[in-house]
Amino acid sequence: MEQFEMNRTITAVSTAPGAGGIAVIRISGTKAIEIADSAWKGKSLTDALSHTAHLGKYYSTSGDLLDEAVATIFRAPASFTGEDVVEISVHGSRWIQKEIIADLIRRGAYAAAPGEFTQRAFINGRLDLAQAEGVADLIASSSRAAHKLAISQTRGGFSRELELLREKLVDFASLLELELDFSEEDVEFADRTRLSELGNAIMKKITRLANSYSSGAALKNGVPVVIAGIPNAGKSSLLNLLLSDDKAIVSDIPGTTRDIIEDTAEIDGILYRFIDTAGLRTTSDKVEKLGIERARLQMTKASIIIWIIDPTSPLQPQTQELDTFISNNLGSKIILLQNKSDINNSPLFEQHHITASTAENRCKSVMTSCMKPILFSAYTGEGLEELIEKLHNLATDGYNPDSDLIVTNARHYQALLQAQAPLRQALAGIDNGISADFIAQDIRETLHHLGTITGAITTDTLLHTIFSRFCIGK
Amino acid sequence: MEQFEMNRTITAVSTAPGAGGIAVIRISGTKAIEIADSAWKGKSLTDALSHTAHLGKYYSTSGDLLDEAVATIFRAPASFTGEDVVEISVHGSRWIQKEIIADLIRRGAYAAAPGEFTQRAFINGRLDLAQAEGVADLIASSSRAAHKLAISQTRGGFSRELELLREKLVDFASLLELELDFSEEDVEFADRTRLSELGNAIMKKITRLANSYSSGAALKNGVPVVIAGIPNAGKSSLLNLLLSDDKAIVSDIPGTTRDIIEDTAEIDGILYRFIDTAGLRTTSDKVEKLGIERARLQMTKASIIIWIIDPTSPLQPQTQELDTFISNNLGSKIILLQNKSDINNSPLFEQHHITASTAENRCKSVMTSCMKPILFSAYTGEGLEELIEKLHNLATDGYNPDSDLIVTNARHYQALLQAQAPLRQALAGIDNGISADFIAQDIRETLHHLGTITGAITTDTLLHTIFSRFCIGK
Repeated sequence: MEQFEMNRTITAVSTAPGAGGIAVIRISGTKAIEIADSAWKGKSLTDALSHTAHLGKYYSTSGDLLDEAVATIFRAPASFTGEDVVEISVHGSRWIQKEIIADLIRRGAYAAAPGEFTQRAFINGRLDLAQAEGVADLIASSSRAAHKLAISQTRGGFSRELELLREKLVDFASLLELELDFSEEDVEFADRTRLSELGNAIMKKITRLANSYSSGAALKNGVPVVIAGIPNAGKSSLLNLLLSDDKAIVSDIPGTTRDIIEDTAEIDGILYRFIDTAGLRTTSDKVEKLGIERARLQMTKASIIIWIIDPTSPLQPQTQELDTFISNNLGSKIILLQNKSDINNSPLFEQHHITASTAENRCKSVMTSCMKPILFSAYTGEGLEELIEKLHNLATDGYNPDSDLIVTNARHYQALLQAQAPLRQALAGIDNGISADFIAQDIRETLHHLGTITGAITTDTLLHTIFSRFCIGK
Repeated sequence: MEQFEMNRTITAVSTAPGAGGIAVIRISGTKAIEIADSAWKGKSLTDALSHTAHLGKYYSTSGDLLDEAVATIFRAPASFTGEDVVEISVHGSRWIQKEIIADLIRRGAYAAAPGEFTQRAFINGRLDLAQAEGVADLIASSSRAAHKLAISQTRGGFSRELELLREKLVDFASLLELELDFSEEDVEFADRTRLSELGNAIMKKITRLANSYSSGAALKNGVPVVIAGIPNAGKSSLLNLLLSDDKAIVSDIPGTTRDIIEDTAEIDGILYRFIDTAGLRTTSDKVEKLGIERARLQMTKASIIIWIIDPTSPLQPQTQELDTFISNNLGSKIILLQNKSDINNSPLFEQHHITASTAENRCKSVMTSCMKPILFSAYTGEGLEELIEKLHNLATDGYNPDSDLIVTNARHYQALLQAQAPLRQALAGIDNGISADFIAQDIRETLHHLGTITGAITTDTLLHTIFSRFCIGK
């Protein structure tokens, strides 16, 4: 971040683009109040107290009345950015928004880059990096779970947990570094057993956080759920049932292809992306074959597959398809649904024993919850509640978005993975009695990667911690 | 307006729909502060002073943290609606907006109907009807001229002019009504000559205002300008030149038909809707004929026609087409452009004298500015400045949007026309010495129609004026 950029006073429309009843234009920087006041007729904004709102008239540099507006003053450091901020609430015409921004630029403000207000909040220490990233997630969140995760991140819960890990590591690293200073005396300030315990505890936490990412990303962006089964098994009826559920908010997303129909619905706070696919069957029709290939591709990419068995069709081809898929895609999360229970409600897999046992065994080795089919009727709604509960469990994967820390950000996930490798090496080093300087180097690297998540500059921090705590006059 | 509706506390998102950095949720009514405070953790909003902003946390009725937000308090009557108002500035995710509105409704607020905040401002006397209508126009305004007209209306300039007219009429009507009370004594309190003078002055003003409507509506909604001429005269090049003018903001509007291409551009503060048409020529092609018919229809509906003459094509068919059009559409505003001046820059109409003189004479009787062709080149840009100046003059029609009162609202136009008829009758009645009660009746009717513009209830007002001013103990 160049110094001159921080000296700039920046401005942008902070509300959603387009015309509305009102729009809010934000100005931040040392000259924010001066610039706004130069356009203002009404009570002096320069003399206004922080956190006060003032009705007045905004005049352009050419003397035209642009709007009657309300200006709210936030004085540094008690503002979002930590700088002087003026928020001008104007009538929300596009024209007024455009003209006032243009006029503020003529008066010396600069058009803010995307995220620049939050960036300033970070630079001015109002937020750390992870919190700042949480703000972006918060604005984009489209379900209760995504919102929960983002708001917890903006409140610093995630950062606090990481800082706690880092502080502990820093303490030990400091002791290791101290050993280096006394290397000729062959002392061990850092207890190797305790270091190893701590390292393992931290590794466990890092691994838990990293593992939460696939659920976290799905919860944030919508959990992809593919609905599969033979033609006319009731896939579309199920889709409609799930989408028209009164707990659901339905929206359309244009399918990436003509054959894949995709819709999102928020059910019990989780956003699902339901994907209806072409019916699975052996066919010689070229176009249909392509559709089925696409369906299989979608199934491999899905978080969860709802696999519908049609009891009114021969069972063997259906279980065979299922068997093949499971063999090729171990670890898939499958919910088996025996549809049309209003017509046939006897558990088919128990009746027939065709390949069900094979399938169940294979499946059990992968995912215990998958193979007991839910007796279901898209017509009567039987089994819907059980289906939704299973979806919820598989989507959250044991994590509770309301209370657990879950990683939703690819950068954080990457940093956690990068922190794992040197930490693993450090732990091996401790076990093998390797000298302090190698272990210290590995731990420094772990700290560095963890530090990139919250934006702390790790090597500086590490040095600072050593010299300020130990301060042995050297 | 039912009483119970006014007792409701209403809420809505006041910023543009969609996700943005922030969104503003407005609450207005007697319970606005109480409702907001019940969800608020932070400084007590109930104790907060008017026009102060407070950082706090919004919790849902179920105890979930929905957002960290800023609440600004406006206490009655110093608010937009004249009631207690809370504006909550939240992170602008759709989800947060939706959840907070839902939560406020659970806490006793009602979802506001469109315009309900402004309606309350009107009912509470913060705005009159014309001003309230101006607020809507202001939000919709998309050019400097439209904005000027709307902002002048919200500031009450239009209402003041009407009120001035009405007050003068009311004074005279009062004197006329007084005569009725003393009808047996045959007195004339109201000087008929002065009444006639006043009536004529008011009629002149009403007529001027009513006449401004066609310009006003065009300035507000965009001035339709058809570009006409034979095929390959350079219509599309001109369109592109006008749209890519660096003073212009270009946007696409899907054509109503495949043959009519329409684009808007703001040039020197006025929004034009430029309409490119099929080339005009005699043809036997059925589809082309249809296109030309449509072009002619557009020309009759346009505010202004830019008629391009191609000097590299035979002149006679072009002037004949022009002659025919002018004969059938007297009063059209036509700007004649002799294109391709980079190839041929001698004034053709002077060279050839074919039908130019006829056309010019016919045209002169209608619109003096129309027939001197501008020597123009879409290639070099020659004549563009002159064209834009002519467009500007024809669009504003002698009115200055910066200073003149211009009617832009169809309801106001209608009311002005309705006020004209009885006023005309009253004036005739005065001339013919008709008795006071008939004249008074006509003036009451005029007042009624003028009063509907600002929302004053005219007959009540009239009675009130009579009895409060004259107060003769009756």
